Amino acid sequence: MSLQNPVFIPGPTNIPDALRKACDMPTVDHRSPIFGDILHPAIAGVKKVMMADAAELFIFPSTGTGGWETAIANTLSPGDGVLAARSGMFSHKWIDMCNRFGLNVQQLDVEWGEGLPVAAFEDILKADTEGRIKAVLATHNETATGVVSDVEGLRKALDQAGHDALLFVDGVSSIASMPFDFDGWKVDVAVTGSQKGFMLPPGLAITAFSEKAVAASKTAKLPRTFFSIDDMRKGYAANAYPYTPAVGLLHGLKTATEMLLAEGMDNVFARHARIAEGVRAAVKAWGLDPCAKRPELYSNTVTAIKTPEGFDANRVVAHASSAYGMAFGAGLGDVAGKVFRIGHLGMLTDAMALSGIATAEMVMADLGLPVTLGSGVAAAQLVYRRGADAKRMAAE
Amino acid sequence: MSLQNPVFIPGPTNIPDALRKACDMPTVDHRSPIFGDILHPAIAGVKKVMMADAAELFIFPSTGTGGWETAIANTLSPGDGVLAARSGMFSHKWIDMCNRFGLNVQQLDVEWGEGLPVAAFEDILKADTEGRIKAVLATHNETATGVVSDVEGLRKALDQAGHDALLFVDGVSSIASMPFDFDGWKVDVAVTGSQKGFMLPPGLAITAFSEKAVAASKTAKLPRTFFSIDDMRKGYAANAYPYTPAVGLLHGLKTATEMLLAEGMDNVFARHARIAEGVRAAVKAWGLDPCAKRPELYSNTVTAIKTPEGFDANRVVAHASSAYGMAFGAGLGDVAGKVFRIGHLGMLTDAMALSGIATAEMVMADLGLPVTLGSGVAAAQLVYRRGADAKRMAAE
Amino acid sequence: MSLQNPVFIPGPTNIPDALRKACDMPTVDHRSPIFGDILHPAIAGVKKVMMADAAELFIFPSTGTGGWETAIANTLSPGDGVLAARSGMFSHKWIDMCNRFGLNVQQLDVEWGEGLPVAAFEDILKADTEGRIKAVLATHNETATGVVSDVEGLRKALDQAGHDALLFVDGVSSIASMPFDFDGWKVDVAVTGSQKGFMLPPGLAITAFSEKAVAASKTAKLPRTFFSIDDMRKGYAANAYPYTPAVGLLHGLKTATEMLLAEGMDNVFARHARIAEGVRAAVKAWGLDPCAKRPELYSNTVTAIKTPEGFDANRVVAHASSAYGMAFGAGLGDVAGKVFRIGHLGMLTDAMALSGIATAEMVMADLGLPVTLGSGVAAAQLVYRRGADAKRMAAE
Amino acid sequence: MSLQNPVFIPGPTNIPDALRKACDMPTVDHRSPIFGDILHPAIAGVKKVMMADAAELFIFPSTGTGGWETAIANTLSPGDGVLAARSGMFSHKWIDMCNRFGLNVQQLDVEWGEGLPVAAFEDILKADTEGRIKAVLATHNETATGVVSDVEGLRKALDQAGHDALLFVDGVSSIASMPFDFDGWKVDVAVTGSQKGFMLPPGLAITAFSEKAVAASKTAKLPRTFFSIDDMRKGYAANAYPYTPAVGLLHGLKTATEMLLAEGMDNVFARHARIAEGVRAAVKAWGLDPCAKRPELYSNTVTAIKTPEGFDANRVVAHASSAYGMAFGAGLGDVAGKVFRIGHLGMLTDAMALSGIATAEMVMADLGLPVTLGSGVAAAQLVYRRGADAKRMAAE
Repeated sequence: MSLQNPVFIPGPTNIPDALRKACDMPTVDHRSPIFGDILHPAIAGVKKVMMADAAELFIFPSTGTGGWETAIANTLSPGDGVLAARSGMFSHKWIDMCNRFGLNVQQLDVEWGEGLPVAAFEDILKADTEGRIKAVLATHNETATGVVSDVEGLRKALDQAGHDALLFVDGVSSIASMPFDFDGWKVDVAVTGSQKGFMLPPGLAITAFSEKAVAASKTAKLPRTFFSIDDMRKGYAANAYPYTPAVGLLHGLKTATEMLLAEGMDNVFARHARIAEGVRAAVKAWGLDPCAKRPELYSNTVTAIKTPEGFDANRVVAHASSAYGMAFGAGLGDVAGKVFRIGHLGMLTDAMALSGIATAEMVMADLGLPVTLGSGVAAAQLVYRRGADAKRMAAE
Repeated sequence: MSLQNPVFIPGPTNIPDALRKACDMPTVDHRSPIFGDILHPAIAGVKKVMMADAAELFIFPSTGTGGWETAIANTLSPGDGVLAARSGMFSHKWIDMCNRFGLNVQQLDVEWGEGLPVAAFEDILKADTEGRIKAVLATHNETATGVVSDVEGLRKALDQAGHDALLFVDGVSSIASMPFDFDGWKVDVAVTGSQKGFMLPPGLAITAFSEKAVAASKTAKLPRTFFSIDDMRKGYAANAYPYTPAVGLLHGLKTATEMLLAEGMDNVFARHARIAEGVRAAVKAWGLDPCAKRPELYSNTVTAIKTPEGFDANRVVAHASSAYGMAFGAGLGDVAGKVFRIGHLGMLTDAMALSGIATAEMVMADLGLPVTLGSGVAAAQLVYRRGADAKRMAAE
Repeated sequence: MSLQNPVFIPGPTNIPDALRKACDMPTVDHRSPIFGDILHPAIAGVKKVMMADAAELFIFPSTGTGGWETAIANTLSPGDGVLAARSGMFSHKWIDMCNRFGLNVQQLDVEWGEGLPVAAFEDILKADTEGRIKAVLATHNETATGVVSDVEGLRKALDQAGHDALLFVDGVSSIASMPFDFDGWKVDVAVTGSQKGFMLPPGLAITAFSEKAVAASKTAKLPRTFFSIDDMRKGYAANAYPYTPAVGLLHGLKTATEMLLAEGMDNVFARHARIAEGVRAAVKAWGLDPCAKRPELYSNTVTAIKTPEGFDANRVVAHASSAYGMAFGAGLGDVAGKVFRIGHLGMLTDAMALSGIATAEMVMADLGLPVTLGSGVAAAQLVYRRGADAKRMAAE
Repeated sequence: MSLQNPVFIPGPTNIPDALRKACDMPTVDHRSPIFGDILHPAIAGVKKVMMADAAELFIFPSTGTGGWETAIANTLSPGDGVLAARSGMFSHKWIDMCNRFGLNVQQLDVEWGEGLPVAAFEDILKADTEGRIKAVLATHNETATGVVSDVEGLRKALDQAGHDALLFVDGVSSIASMPFDFDGWKVDVAVTGSQKGFMLPPGLAITAFSEKAVAASKTAKLPRTFFSIDDMRKGYAANAYPYTPAVGLLHGLKTATEMLLAEGMDNVFARHARIAEGVRAAVKAWGLDPCAKRPELYSNTVTAIKTPEGFDANRVVAHASSAYGMAFGAGLGDVAGKVFRIGHLGMLTDAMALSGIATAEMVMADLGLPVTLGSGVAAAQLVYRRGADAKRMAAE
């Protein structure tokens, strides 16, 4: 791949120059007051981005997977029931983690390309009159399939069922790019990372805990040290960490939230929606279909594109890399070889998106897929021109 | 403009990450041996890039304009005759400089879009039996019009005329991007900058002097201090400068020549030719014409594109910047308002070039020009796919 | 604190410019071959640095604390016996982690300032004829007290006792700065981080597993996902991670090992020894004592300095920060308020060390401690001049 | 030398991290509005720093030497009289430049270590009743000798003599570090660079012109193109340059002036005075003398230190570099071999200064000079502790 090209993997995303500089700090004493001046604004910024005023934030030098572990290990005990749907690679992995921790997972298998089966969840929750289910796992945006699920609906289902299970949400590839309302949706633990909507290098697991989730941690029996929110809370109270914090990344996170909030979260979401719509228009122009089954499931951060039967979709990724130095995402798990993915989250411009679309066209043409050169670009251009138009009208 | 997008001005060019890092040095003592270890390899690298084994190199903390002044002030005396063609903004400015220095300029006015009038030069040189003409100025690549001229032919004309005038070549937007043979073409002074083919920030005037040009400096009477090659030579002999050198930029230049030579100059030239051909294919698909009159004049570093009569080409540049955050070059001088320019020199990938072409299409469509969306992209894709193909075949 | 001054905390250490640049990468596709070209050389380099040819390396996006958890969670089962000495803050914390994981810790309390009680360990191991002790924990360099322990001796004690417990070594503040012989000492799991001897920002837990430790992981029953070496091994085999790797830090690690190995580990150790000897000479000149009880316990990476009875040592750290913008380490745990610490690991020059010593002098004088200005500097200068002398003689 | 150590050459100075980042920009279109947003605040900031409200600023991609040429070439004509004192290397070079430009220099030779001979100048000016002297050259701070001269007094002398010669001031190593009052002193052209008090890499010649100097440019006949203030003014009016500007350095300059003005120029000057006083206290403790003859001539940016008769002062510089990786300044011109120089301008902390002083002590001791280790450090510490004391009292 070429370091000159933007990446179109669904994270880590392209890092804006200002954020690379924010992360690249000389060593500062992480036990000096200067650290508090980084940590607390970073936390406050993240809370605003995810609408989590009421939450406690815990940020670990780790990744989203560590965030999943944080959610589980701090709130649950061996044998606890967990409800989850397996609808993509990342929900699959989170379920696997629950199994390893000795949790009792009630797993719904859902076709990849579908979203959370909210109605089925509601039925199960209603039936669980003994309250065996302690937590419901929801993957807000399934990065493997490009499907966004209805977390708000899931909350309603929980309420409808009168069930008090904790609601865990994996927002790794949604938070900071698509609307996410921690407080409004009464999420109990939300998990994300630094390397997606926050546009930073990987290295931070960002978790938000509701009061109820924090309360659960008092009695939860799973072992935890590195991912202990208790130790973390004590550290924060002293402007510190229970161990060495990733100061540079936290400084980057502070700066990233400043950038996002300065742009305005509604504008950030609109930008993602516009870029994504352009990509989907291109897909349609190519005569292909997204993996996501229905428009309401379309993700604004990643599109998984189904290639024709009998064609190995991994060839798109390999050829894009070797022939044009461009990185797309391969299909994972059940859809490996059947889809390739265009990540379109983080700080992308229309021009960057078009370079990805144009390159995908060349790649598919090179590989003999019946794609008309320029067709996807033209379709996306129509979308992006409307965006420029809207900007112009807003300025007038 | 967006800092995320590549620039398509004809220099300064997009700076590869490795070169930004090479330039960004902590302060080093420019009188310590460490400086010699930067300076001399940088000079040696530049000599290889411009095929100037026999030359003396002088690198000033300045720009290409300072390089022009270096050429003139070190070799000429007030009243000396100079032969030059005015064929674009940069030849125009160099001529203006000669006039300010009290030189006696014989100026040929050439239509912008044409190259050096080699035959006319030859006639004039033949007629100058008294040797009043001390120097011939040649703009190898006229950045304003996207025209590359025949310097080799000019050398033959000089030889044919048996004239011993010095041959000065402005290679600012050609050197390191298009073939340049200092020794073979018997150039006497070549001038370039850091910010074009060398892919660095602006700040260096790079000049190469032939033995004959150095000899001329012994008797030249124009005043010079900052741009004195004599002072510079004495400095270099002591691993130093006559004043404070731009250490970081010189370190960048050393690294840039290493990158270029590792890629191989033939490959660098082929890459520029391929990218340029794609741009020109797009221009044709749009139904537009380049400013350069004939194919043999087409520059591989910049294309000036004529817009239809009555349309103000500057609107393209302004709208690209405001609506899409992308920088193209405006028309200058005689072609102001009549052309806009796409710079395609330095480290560009196919994908980057396509993002520029796609954006130009949107801009022109927005402004009501009869351009079919996707048409230029498709034309360029055909060219770039051949490049990928060639790469694949070479690898097999 | 001032970002201009070097830090004298015992890690994170001052990051050389070349390593800051190595870490500051644009996003690369961590599933592309480029990642393998970073990962595998980084692993190979670390193996050389810690003399761990026979080991398997596992590097987590985490910190040293995560490394401790990796050691435990992958090799032990609930109820397993663990032998450990509490001789400082970091051994204290590792023991605490074992307790949280339901391990059965046999804890020896040792005065802070002492090293590992090798003889007592040997007695205990000999007495454990039933093999209840599954692992022995050793803190090679206790960062809280500036004490280096005899890991080689501990290995001999294990061998003498004919005990087959696993030997876990916390080398966080020793590896890459002081001799560490993973293979020779038959260490089973060694743990370190990126931010000490490797001179990088925090964010990596680096662990080395012996064949025996890897074998133990097959039957170990503690839960693990994020810190699973099994998942990690599978990832590495495919040039990948089980989740998103910290590509930039790994690139930094590759570069750091190149720097260390180019300098030569013996030279690296000698440099640390010289810098440390100068600091200790200063401490003596000030009429103060190190926390470490005896010369053979003196650490070459950090010196904890006892302040006079009745004086709050934390004032040194606070005043150094507020008055002179310099960061020293505070006393922790049992020695909080009784010592302050000068970290002298990573890439320090003599001049940098002298700036720390000179500042400590001013601070102590400001606070009324009976320290003669210039005295510690003069004592250290004698040491450092010998170093320069040795360098000169080696060059002749 | 080591890139880890601060430099103690009298410029280029140590670049603060924030300024390295400000300079390290991706390419921006220098003809887009974004450039004006960099240029104009940079100019406004410099005006505040040098108290030059009434001046026109012209900033060239060049160095201080280019600034000298700008002053001369834009205001004078061949044969014009110039009055100057040769009191160090930099005044010597400026005079040489005047001679090359065919100016008629009336040169006063002054012992190196003395300042501007204000009284002698006044006498000469009074005697010049025909107004042959068109410009008086003043080196505000002679970097070679560490002597600051009385520019305000020189202005009074000019006024006293009723002479209307232009007053040119070389403030390269004084501006932004020592008080400089362009308007108050009625300076006509002031010259400085980016790499001294502005703490940036070299590459900018910064010049301020009074209304009178600008008026002189209308009739001045020396040739100029690269250094033409007329071309520059026209460029600025269009948010542009007559050629490619050094955008990154200008962005750095904008940021540097923000940093300086945020600290407050009085505080900046006081910091320089304190650091310098410490260095001079060390020199005295070593039993050595500064080159500057009298206390009122002592520069707060550089101290030239005389070594004993018969000792080659250059050995200090060479040994410091080879044995300790530290850069001091060598003696230049008339005092070559007789002095070495400690530069103490730009962003230095007390701790950094002490590292330079401590290293100088080791170097001199190594070379057999009768210097007591720690003596200079102790003397400087007394000074710096007072500074910390003052800071503490100000905070209370």
